[in-house]
Amino acid sequence: MHADAVQNLIDQLGRLPGVGPKSAQRIAYHLLKVPKEDALALAAAVATAKERVRFCEVCHNLSEAPRCQICADTRRDATLVCVVEEPRDIVSVERTGGFRGRYHVLGGAINPMEGVGPDQLKVRELLARIDSDDVVEVILCTNPNLEGDTTAMYLARLLKPLGVRVTRIASGLPVGGDLEYADELTLGRAIEGRRDVEA
Amino acid sequence: MHADAVQNLIDQLGRLPGVGPKSAQRIAYHLLKVPKEDALALAAAVATAKERVRFCEVCHNLSEAPRCQICADTRRDATLVCVVEEPRDIVSVERTGGFRGRYHVLGGAINPMEGVGPDQLKVRELLARIDSDDVVEVILCTNPNLEGDTTAMYLARLLKPLGVRVTRIASGLPVGGDLEYADELTLGRAIEGRRDVEA
Repeated sequence: MHADAVQNLIDQLGRLPGVGPKSAQRIAYHLLKVPKEDALALAAAVATAKERVRFCEVCHNLSEAPRCQICADTRRDATLVCVVEEPRDIVSVERTGGFRGRYHVLGGAINPMEGVGPDQLKVRELLARIDSDDVVEVILCTNPNLEGDTTAMYLARLLKPLGVRVTRIASGLPVGGDLEYADELTLGRAIEGRRDVEA
Repeated sequence: MHADAVQNLIDQLGRLPGVGPKSAQRIAYHLLKVPKEDALALAAAVATAKERVRFCEVCHNLSEAPRCQICADTRRDATLVCVVEEPRDIVSVERTGGFRGRYHVLGGAINPMEGVGPDQLKVRELLARIDSDDVVEVILCTNPNLEGDTTAMYLARLLKPLGVRVTRIASGLPVGGDLEYADELTLGRAIEGRRDVEA
């Protein structure tokens, strides 16, 4: 029903995460409608990103240089390492503006159902950094879900014997959240992680 | 915070309709993760579509040839023309499997607020077809909203003096719909458009 080139574009767009058949069609028609240079700018951005972007040799963040901007920044504290699952998690932590250490990207979380074990993650590379960078504290910043918690527990057992301080981000109610709408797991964790009030 | 090529890709993706900043980031990371040939297939699909796809010289549908597949198909009834706003609407009508006539794409609907009047639409081209193709009936298949209704009314006034039958698609409750959840406008239109029951 569509011209071949249109159908192919819709198919390619439909393979993107979160883009269903309807969105793919909508985006395709949008691209066919905009000026040619705008559409080609998108095509070029994909090609350029695939060409230039690789993984940081230290922390496995996305980078255009052998070392990412954070690992190359000597003002960042190399003795404090925040372990995350994916490069996008670094963006989230950086946005808080409160972290001045470095990162280590695992490339996922332990998930036996999906066949992801420690060997598929950058665990060995993390252990190597503990030694070479004189790391004092490792903050386990994997997602607060089953896979992330399992991964954090696994890493904690591995890291503690090395004499490094191992911490885990707090679970609890979101700031500005409402007790009424909190699910019982989150509220349970919030109560578990309660702190003394300074008065 | 992102490498330049990554940020540029996120920016380009964020300009697509229905793709917010979060989705743009998610899609960008997805593209950086998949095999290079998969990502480049998307880039190529955009470029190829922009290169090959133009508008059908008869009905202004998207096409890779001077005439679109439907206009080139001699089995389609040229005396019955379905007028739609956009090429994507043709896909919707074709999916019903019940229409054997041809189409005419206006390229939008009359919308004074957006500066779209009859001159910005393919109205003159429609009038020219009425004559040359001996059109018997024009089905006004613009959207059942303010702009689409205005456009349909405008075209009806223009076409009727030419001695052609002019019809408008019915408004009413969706098949399988529920009276309880129908908005009052739709229900009002459904009552207005009621038909005698054959018993």
